[in-house]
Amino acid sequence: MTRKVLIVGGVAGGASVAARVRRLDERAEIIMFEKGPHVSFSNCSLPYHLSGIIEDSEKLVLSSPETFKKRYNIEARVNQEVIKINRDAKTVTVKDYLTDQTYEESYDKLVLSPGAKPIRPNLTGVNRDHVFTVRNVVDIERLNAYIKYNGIKDIAVVGGGFIGVEVAENLRLAGYNVTLVEFANQVLAPFDADMAQILHKELIDQGVELVLNDGLAEISEQCIITNSGRKIEAQAVVLAIGVQPETDLAKDAGLEIGETNAIKVDSNYLTSDKHIYAVGDAIEVYHRLLQKPTRLPLAGPAQKQARAAADHMYGMPIRNNGVIGSSSIHVFELNAASTGLNAKTAEQAGIKYDYVYIMPQDKVGLMPDSHTLHFKLIYEYPTGRILGAQAIGKGNVDKRIDVVATMITMNGTLEDLKDLELTYSPMLGTAKDVVNHAALVGLNLLHGRYKEVKVSEVRELVESDAFIIDAREAHEFNAGHLKNAINIPLSEFRDRLDEIPKDRPVYIHCRSGQRSYNMVMALTHLGYDHVYNISGSYLGISLYEYYHDLISGRDKIVTNYNFN
Amino acid sequence: MTRKVLIVGGVAGGASVAARVRRLDERAEIIMFEKGPHVSFSNCSLPYHLSGIIEDSEKLVLSSPETFKKRYNIEARVNQEVIKINRDAKTVTVKDYLTDQTYEESYDKLVLSPGAKPIRPNLTGVNRDHVFTVRNVVDIERLNAYIKYNGIKDIAVVGGGFIGVEVAENLRLAGYNVTLVEFANQVLAPFDADMAQILHKELIDQGVELVLNDGLAEISEQCIITNSGRKIEAQAVVLAIGVQPETDLAKDAGLEIGETNAIKVDSNYLTSDKHIYAVGDAIEVYHRLLQKPTRLPLAGPAQKQARAAADHMYGMPIRNNGVIGSSSIHVFELNAASTGLNAKTAEQAGIKYDYVYIMPQDKVGLMPDSHTLHFKLIYEYPTGRILGAQAIGKGNVDKRIDVVATMITMNGTLEDLKDLELTYSPMLGTAKDVVNHAALVGLNLLHGRYKEVKVSEVRELVESDAFIIDAREAHEFNAGHLKNAINIPLSEFRDRLDEIPKDRPVYIHCRSGQRSYNMVMALTHLGYDHVYNISGSYLGISLYEYYHDLISGRDKIVTNYNFN
Repeated sequence: MTRKVLIVGGVAGGASVAARVRRLDERAEIIMFEKGPHVSFSNCSLPYHLSGIIEDSEKLVLSSPETFKKRYNIEARVNQEVIKINRDAKTVTVKDYLTDQTYEESYDKLVLSPGAKPIRPNLTGVNRDHVFTVRNVVDIERLNAYIKYNGIKDIAVVGGGFIGVEVAENLRLAGYNVTLVEFANQVLAPFDADMAQILHKELIDQGVELVLNDGLAEISEQCIITNSGRKIEAQAVVLAIGVQPETDLAKDAGLEIGETNAIKVDSNYLTSDKHIYAVGDAIEVYHRLLQKPTRLPLAGPAQKQARAAADHMYGMPIRNNGVIGSSSIHVFELNAASTGLNAKTAEQAGIKYDYVYIMPQDKVGLMPDSHTLHFKLIYEYPTGRILGAQAIGKGNVDKRIDVVATMITMNGTLEDLKDLELTYSPMLGTAKDVVNHAALVGLNLLHGRYKEVKVSEVRELVESDAFIIDAREAHEFNAGHLKNAINIPLSEFRDRLDEIPKDRPVYIHCRSGQRSYNMVMALTHLGYDHVYNISGSYLGISLYEYYHDLISGRDKIVTNYNFN
Repeated sequence: MTRKVLIVGGVAGGASVAARVRRLDERAEIIMFEKGPHVSFSNCSLPYHLSGIIEDSEKLVLSSPETFKKRYNIEARVNQEVIKINRDAKTVTVKDYLTDQTYEESYDKLVLSPGAKPIRPNLTGVNRDHVFTVRNVVDIERLNAYIKYNGIKDIAVVGGGFIGVEVAENLRLAGYNVTLVEFANQVLAPFDADMAQILHKELIDQGVELVLNDGLAEISEQCIITNSGRKIEAQAVVLAIGVQPETDLAKDAGLEIGETNAIKVDSNYLTSDKHIYAVGDAIEVYHRLLQKPTRLPLAGPAQKQARAAADHMYGMPIRNNGVIGSSSIHVFELNAASTGLNAKTAEQAGIKYDYVYIMPQDKVGLMPDSHTLHFKLIYEYPTGRILGAQAIGKGNVDKRIDVVATMITMNGTLEDLKDLELTYSPMLGTAKDVVNHAALVGLNLLHGRYKEVKVSEVRELVESDAFIIDAREAHEFNAGHLKNAINIPLSEFRDRLDEIPKDRPVYIHCRSGQRSYNMVMALTHLGYDHVYNISGSYLGISLYEYYHDLISGRDKIVTNYNFN
């Protein structure tokens, strides 16, 4: 008997389900409904049309209904929307936007992959012609055409998530004056505030006007007005505040909706109706580290869910590991990637954790394109179980995060991570990789071999006149240092022990933490009981303080920043 | 009581032991002996001086005795060789090459990190002035000066291991005529023959004269003569045949030597004398996949061993996981990396295995620098346990191998690898990463969902007039195809089923294996019992056949190669 499978949505999740069903069942009748004109386009690549990195927007469309038909015998009906599920009759009601007609189609199995839609806040001016969102190829073509043919100069992008930052970047690369407005105190929520500073600096350095801690209040013809009353010139506005799962169809059909307001599914991606599956951005998934439902609107998980749903439809046992949340982004000259929990999320979830922040070179220092790699590793206290990581730099940061993602999935600990035998050659890495290095530091902390304070605590130390040693050489110190730090280079401290007090805490930093670590260990063995390494060291302090100083206009605690 | 630690060798392993001991014990007396003039140089970077990528050879030296003294209170005695260990007296005899004097130095703990030396075969002409090996900064400076100041044009590099290939590459980049001679039928043993073809092609395309299956027989003033009698013009010769562990000192002292002819150590890197540790290229290590001793002269493991030895010296429990062997190399425009076992080694060890060979894009195809990534994944049969992987391409290949290395270490299976949630953004990868993809193919094979033949078996199929379908479109077929293949595009096969026989095996390929996979699945469901996907597909066939045809001059089985 021929099985009839209907699929709602023809992009990441939907197209993957269709292709997988075909491979499992050559005789199935497969119909995929897409309300827009395109199936199987690369949503993640949309912003790159704005800069011309993808010049031809047609390239964004990876396949056509004709190809689906010819290669896979899959019927892709575009410009047709499933507007109702008739669960008892096992049919859907379809609206054809080209003929304006409505009809019914029956199913044996139905798969919902409707995605998520950009949030449009209910604000004055939000429906003006120069206000855009970015969800599909039509959207990006419209935006691109509008700003090109109307000679737009100033564009406001509202929302500092992945789409907002990528749209801002690509518009800036195309030469527009871009203001990026974000309600929170940082862009890109997967990163902790200390790491996000690096991205803020890059956005600013590349000419994006960055407005944090401020939200959109109103849109008028030539400008937007923020909550704080700031007027920002903008003849075009892109809303990238976030997305919300498309649940209307499911709700209307009485399917269960989860606590995160996305479609609820079981471990096999079945909804509360055993003939209806749901996958992709519209569903809620299980976070294996937080042990609770979450939403994770990303392409990778959508594809995995699609395959799993199709497999289950054909009686194959599937494994649902939940999600950990891995992602990456390219921001001008930087790459940034993260996986698992950040410190913020771990804190909110009440998980006991600690973290390491290091910044070694990403490849052998004497190689021409060796760069500083900022790396933060979060682990559970006291078990040392790896919980998450974030990496930012010009080089291969995603490599390190993928390794940590693998470790998290396999329940690895700091001990496992330190021992990892990774590939190395001078053009591609360092003999002791960043992840090995971070694990070693983490173990030192976990085992109590030395103590440290975080980069975010340094201002208080300076303001309370703590005893801070700068372990760099004099010429480095003179180029910029903490206002009340004392310069005792690692190469001199053994002869200058009488300058270091034993009766009060001593805080030590250098450029990146390596020299100060050695001095901390030595002083600890010499009987100094309260010696602390300053995590992140002068590079981290500079980055952290730079942006905070910039937005708050507060007094600098350094004589000069040093970012190199 | 002050502990006195002597260290033989001042490069990777030795310098790491010294630094770690200092961090664990501020009061220890630490003396490091190095028979050459430099401590702590970057051995792995030596070849890059020849091309000028590292122009100033002094930069290869990462630290000086003065810095060791000032920063770490470590005494680095250069130009001094430990020539004898007096185990009963717990002293060593040291020869100072500057004063030509000999003296004794006592120890509480001794660490041997003497490294490995380049093999110099006993051949006519091997001691001529124009014959070089590459082990340290002095070597590379001498070689570089010789070829520059003598106006050398033709250079022979003997040995196609890491050093040989890197030296050949850098000499070629500097404009010399370079012949690379390798005794085996491929360069770079960590790669299987099918993967090595890609590297062979790159070496040839970049102008290196590649001579395989041939060894060095004799060196005369203007040329070398190979075993096969071939005369190769060369006014300079670099021997990079391999290295052998420096064991003379240990042997002389009666320390146990292992079955691989390297110094034998226990799980704590102690030799058969409980006061003497040994680390680095001179020792034998335990291969956790082969479950036997092996030698692995690489910088990463040396550093880990060094730290472990120092920790054990101070009573800390250490964990010895053995090694799996991870490495990478940059060859002109390609990156290549591998980890664990290759098919060759698994075969030799009698381990039941199978493998997957795929070649997807390394990032979203429409991004400007998206490239084909050749990926081979080896797993145990029938468990699906991951045993090894190899990756070659212009992009981020080491990322994928590091993920697999992590999986191997954590005893991961194909099922684990397929589910891995890795970072993705279009500038950095694909939603379904190469490793996920390879694991899915592996599971299909393991579960018997379809069958495949390997790229190395295609010639036999063609020659025996097997029924081979080329599933690409006609214009692709016309640009080059297997001599007796029939072109039935995936987009047409459903209407042309009558052309496909049911009574004999059917072999299918396309460009990279994706379309043929779909056709194989469809035919299987339609009752074709003997349908096989050709692993590696036309790209893999082209690469595999190209080089074999080139060296053996045999008949081509394709009308035209296609490498893109």
